[in-house]
Amino acid sequence: MAVRAAVAGASGYAGGEVLRLLLGHPEVEIGAVTGHSSAGQRLGSLQPHLAPLAGRVVEATSAEALAGHDVVFLALPHGRSAAVAEQLGPDVLVVDCGADFRLRDAADWTAFYGSAHAGTWPYGLPELPGGRTALHGARRIAVPGCYPTAVSLALFPAYAAGIAEPEAVIVAASGTSGAGKALKPHLLGSEVMGSMSPYGVGGGHRHTPEMIQNLSAVAGERVGVSFTPTLAPMARGILATCSAKARPGVDAEAVRTAYEKALAEEPFVQLLPAGQWPSTAAVHGSNAAQIQVALDPAAHRIIAISAIDNLTKGTAGGAVQSMNIALGLPERTGLSAVGVAP
Amino acid sequence: MAVRAAVAGASGYAGGEVLRLLLGHPEVEIGAVTGHSSAGQRLGSLQPHLAPLAGRVVEATSAEALAGHDVVFLALPHGRSAAVAEQLGPDVLVVDCGADFRLRDAADWTAFYGSAHAGTWPYGLPELPGGRTALHGARRIAVPGCYPTAVSLALFPAYAAGIAEPEAVIVAASGTSGAGKALKPHLLGSEVMGSMSPYGVGGGHRHTPEMIQNLSAVAGERVGVSFTPTLAPMARGILATCSAKARPGVDAEAVRTAYEKALAEEPFVQLLPAGQWPSTAAVHGSNAAQIQVALDPAAHRIIAISAIDNLTKGTAGGAVQSMNIALGLPERTGLSAVGVAP
Amino acid sequence: MAVRAAVAGASGYAGGEVLRLLLGHPEVEIGAVTGHSSAGQRLGSLQPHLAPLAGRVVEATSAEALAGHDVVFLALPHGRSAAVAEQLGPDVLVVDCGADFRLRDAADWTAFYGSAHAGTWPYGLPELPGGRTALHGARRIAVPGCYPTAVSLALFPAYAAGIAEPEAVIVAASGTSGAGKALKPHLLGSEVMGSMSPYGVGGGHRHTPEMIQNLSAVAGERVGVSFTPTLAPMARGILATCSAKARPGVDAEAVRTAYEKALAEEPFVQLLPAGQWPSTAAVHGSNAAQIQVALDPAAHRIIAISAIDNLTKGTAGGAVQSMNIALGLPERTGLSAVGVAP
Amino acid sequence: MAVRAAVAGASGYAGGEVLRLLLGHPEVEIGAVTGHSSAGQRLGSLQPHLAPLAGRVVEATSAEALAGHDVVFLALPHGRSAAVAEQLGPDVLVVDCGADFRLRDAADWTAFYGSAHAGTWPYGLPELPGGRTALHGARRIAVPGCYPTAVSLALFPAYAAGIAEPEAVIVAASGTSGAGKALKPHLLGSEVMGSMSPYGVGGGHRHTPEMIQNLSAVAGERVGVSFTPTLAPMARGILATCSAKARPGVDAEAVRTAYEKALAEEPFVQLLPAGQWPSTAAVHGSNAAQIQVALDPAAHRIIAISAIDNLTKGTAGGAVQSMNIALGLPERTGLSAVGVAP
Repeated sequence: MAVRAAVAGASGYAGGEVLRLLLGHPEVEIGAVTGHSSAGQRLGSLQPHLAPLAGRVVEATSAEALAGHDVVFLALPHGRSAAVAEQLGPDVLVVDCGADFRLRDAADWTAFYGSAHAGTWPYGLPELPGGRTALHGARRIAVPGCYPTAVSLALFPAYAAGIAEPEAVIVAASGTSGAGKALKPHLLGSEVMGSMSPYGVGGGHRHTPEMIQNLSAVAGERVGVSFTPTLAPMARGILATCSAKARPGVDAEAVRTAYEKALAEEPFVQLLPAGQWPSTAAVHGSNAAQIQVALDPAAHRIIAISAIDNLTKGTAGGAVQSMNIALGLPERTGLSAVGVAP
Repeated sequence: MAVRAAVAGASGYAGGEVLRLLLGHPEVEIGAVTGHSSAGQRLGSLQPHLAPLAGRVVEATSAEALAGHDVVFLALPHGRSAAVAEQLGPDVLVVDCGADFRLRDAADWTAFYGSAHAGTWPYGLPELPGGRTALHGARRIAVPGCYPTAVSLALFPAYAAGIAEPEAVIVAASGTSGAGKALKPHLLGSEVMGSMSPYGVGGGHRHTPEMIQNLSAVAGERVGVSFTPTLAPMARGILATCSAKARPGVDAEAVRTAYEKALAEEPFVQLLPAGQWPSTAAVHGSNAAQIQVALDPAAHRIIAISAIDNLTKGTAGGAVQSMNIALGLPERTGLSAVGVAP
Repeated sequence: MAVRAAVAGASGYAGGEVLRLLLGHPEVEIGAVTGHSSAGQRLGSLQPHLAPLAGRVVEATSAEALAGHDVVFLALPHGRSAAVAEQLGPDVLVVDCGADFRLRDAADWTAFYGSAHAGTWPYGLPELPGGRTALHGARRIAVPGCYPTAVSLALFPAYAAGIAEPEAVIVAASGTSGAGKALKPHLLGSEVMGSMSPYGVGGGHRHTPEMIQNLSAVAGERVGVSFTPTLAPMARGILATCSAKARPGVDAEAVRTAYEKALAEEPFVQLLPAGQWPSTAAVHGSNAAQIQVALDPAAHRIIAISAIDNLTKGTAGGAVQSMNIALGLPERTGLSAVGVAP
Repeated sequence: MAVRAAVAGASGYAGGEVLRLLLGHPEVEIGAVTGHSSAGQRLGSLQPHLAPLAGRVVEATSAEALAGHDVVFLALPHGRSAAVAEQLGPDVLVVDCGADFRLRDAADWTAFYGSAHAGTWPYGLPELPGGRTALHGARRIAVPGCYPTAVSLALFPAYAAGIAEPEAVIVAASGTSGAGKALKPHLLGSEVMGSMSPYGVGGGHRHTPEMIQNLSAVAGERVGVSFTPTLAPMARGILATCSAKARPGVDAEAVRTAYEKALAEEPFVQLLPAGQWPSTAAVHGSNAAQIQVALDPAAHRIIAISAIDNLTKGTAGGAVQSMNIALGLPERTGLSAVGVAP
């Protein structure tokens, strides 16, 4: 019997990617697709790549439209998920692709988002220590941010093994789809093609406290994070270059061993062979994360680099992976670790 | 019992795309992967997106390596397929992604390829009139060229309905993967990014006789083709803008009707609703073709435009689709009509 | 004594490019920079590449702001230029980068733009036969559209020599800056990167009558045009692939001779040596046009291809070139024929 | 009387950019253009954007070909400059765009380049403290590497003011032209478009010791550098994200003051107003560097970001700027601080 899934926020990039993955998921039947300003429009005009759904008309997001589904994916602007989730019964699996329920610390939430904290849901990054356990049977899931996914996968092995000092410096490049479909001048094709530029510099990006939360939990102590995001001339992908001082005495072999141990069993995380480096192209459209790590002997820093597709592993793929775990389905169902390259 | 498939030419873009699709094909088990200059290398270093095959070592292409498979895909340079195919038994399905067996006219072959004609195999474009019949039970298949696929899908409905004059003008833009992985200066990223340029201007492109062959067969008379290919700053995709004078008296409704009739039942060809235009992004990584058509009332020309992914529907997807038909599998098996967008 | 120039519409791409060129023009001093919704903002925040003007504040476009200049460049939305120009004295050189005064036929104007015809000004394409004469001493100049510039330069030699039939088929690819800075979903970087798509198919693009006007004037008979524009994943550049049946008896040598004769003396139009093809990269940021032509012997069509930078030769460079002629300055002053490549 | 300049290595990206700038330099006349494997070819086929030089034939690089010039620019592979320079008289200004004479420490040279140290020439980064003085009247100039230019401009103000701890972490994204025109698979357009990837991770990039040399000289103590370069899907541009712990007690105002003081008089370095961030598009094709800086209060790190065009300010523009100083010409001659954007 198929799992019946609804997607709220179906006209955006996150919602579109959830639908793309669900179309290939053998256990899921797509029910309601809802939106706000897009309500009443044909999905085919909004998401022309989703051919099998082209004739669907977007409904207005409402409790009625979302009722009667086993799973509801929320791909809404920040601050909108709580009101929708409240109206859905406790047996419905609600998977929130937004930020509202990611942070445990209410003060962090208010400092970075400026509103009252809605609460904390089980966190949808199964690869973290204890991550899968937290998701078994869950009926509410907070999907991680795209940058925190990339950064946590790159650095948690180092902190789990205790080989890194608790101060990380992260510079990440993201494709423009990470900024959503909002009509902003700096996101125009004419502006982004051929250009790299930073934003949210100086610790202000809202994903920063989420990274700190994840890495600190693994390290067992507070890990400080300096995070600088940059916008790259590509539609998809995140390349996160993460580094931290190695603890005294840590050598290259210890680093390699820590990563092999942490990642050996992961179905979607690929620790690359020595000498090969991640690229966002290799994971395009897939739920895979490519990881490589090196020890800079002169600076005695661990450099860990991850490549993910921000819309897939960084959002919708992570959401479906967590849904699979919550529902007791095989974790890989409907998800591919093969990128669309070149 | 799984179909066992080998891929010769596994290190190139066409071979890599065949492997990508076969990894998602539920009835296929991937056997030998072979290459020429890449023999002995890990596939993971050559095709880093094909994670499940990363540990495979490329074998040298030989009769021995390719023996014992139900299907052998050839993704070889022009002129190399015949020698390999000869060594494979008549019961083995050989699917040639190269040009060697596409043309029926030996003189055309020699004029455009400069060598002796190897022969003609059943042509792997099921959407053409009679196309599927020719493939049922076939054990040799010539996969169409990427441009002829795009152009034939855009124009055959007009010629099948007899509404177009037999002179077509075609300008197509292709992503750089259509030119393969050869190390040529004009294919460097620094050269192609931010740049459009034509090539093979003046009727010299080798895909021209194949277009003429396809359209003439549908029209029942010789259709002349003026074809200009251009290189676009993207890795994948073909946008083919095709036009021909409308026959006297043909109006917009007749044009629309012709296309609806020809394409209504096609699983992978999407005739878009009026007002919506194809884009290569919408079919990225998928086996879909998007088609739209208009009648220019002032010039009395039919303008038919198609968008495909040159590596998928234009090469490897068409190959797998044809394989499915030849083997009696459902035609859509292992193939998606959903693009990876944005 | 410097020519004092104002630019109305300074926040858009056309206005920004006019300013970029004027900053390098040795005879021009930049006076007022005005805008509509951008009035009151620092130019540095709107056009961060125009460093020497970063501190300028955009004034509201008005007769007062534009008074007291020798030259006023108008880079305004269609339909806005007449009202501004009326308020400028007859001795002021007004260079309109918009469409309002390009067409001679009022019915064409109304059919394509839906409003009353404002009039016709001397046309700023000096390369056309008689083009320079029309600009000497002019005090009103209509700058050609970007596509008509590319197409007219590619085809006028054929029509001037009488070697082409009067029906042209044109497919052009444009960078996204040709669509301006308007915030439209299909112009987002996420949508355009990696994608080619057509628009205005079927004869509806507003530049069509302008092409017909130019080519017909050269040919001495009405030249029909089938024009299909496409949007390419690059910020700048137009590649126009133009073709027409060759007149009976015309051979490759006649074609080459016609182009050599028409273009030999042009400072900004480069007829490439045989075997070399235009690219938009080679003219990036320059006022150059690269042209190549071939005769397709099988289709007996002349294929003429041009590459320009839509913002430079296609808009602001053409405007400055025409200004130079009107003011009696050397035509090349402040303009480069050297592209910024790669 | 014009300065007569020769360019050795005219077929590559650096040589081509030197020629592009010299074509716009009012005091320079271009003499010999030489190459190695390109000798005998028309420059127009190698550098099609350099229209005025299209008819020039590349000569073989030799003492004879380079004799009789006032300035000789060397754009050669590493290790080739010394032999050529030796044959040029002491009165000839030799400007080496390669690495051979950049490093002062012979051991560093050998460790990173694997050969014997050729020597040290005056260093062509006038913005560094004392930088201009070292270039006055010089007849040998070592042009800095592109990354060291970007990084040194971003960080030297912090080290000059003594506000940063001597350990810098740098992640930079470069356009593909930084890797040159060499035919390597990972530089193909199909590979780089839509993809970000790192290289030279772990401290191995050859520009690392040059950064350490520059920053240490300014700081008056050894500054350690952790440097990770990444390849971005664009032809030109470097965005360098540089950070270091702020010294205790340093606040945002002190940071801003340090940068304003260091950069106020620089003709090509633009410290952006608060809230505006550099982009590589804004400096495309120009000799400008855009800089912005922030203090992350939580991490207490100074984040300094620079954007340059790797071929212009990062190579050829820096070379011409240094030539101007050495020859006593106004520093800005022939150089623009205006980018070609969008």
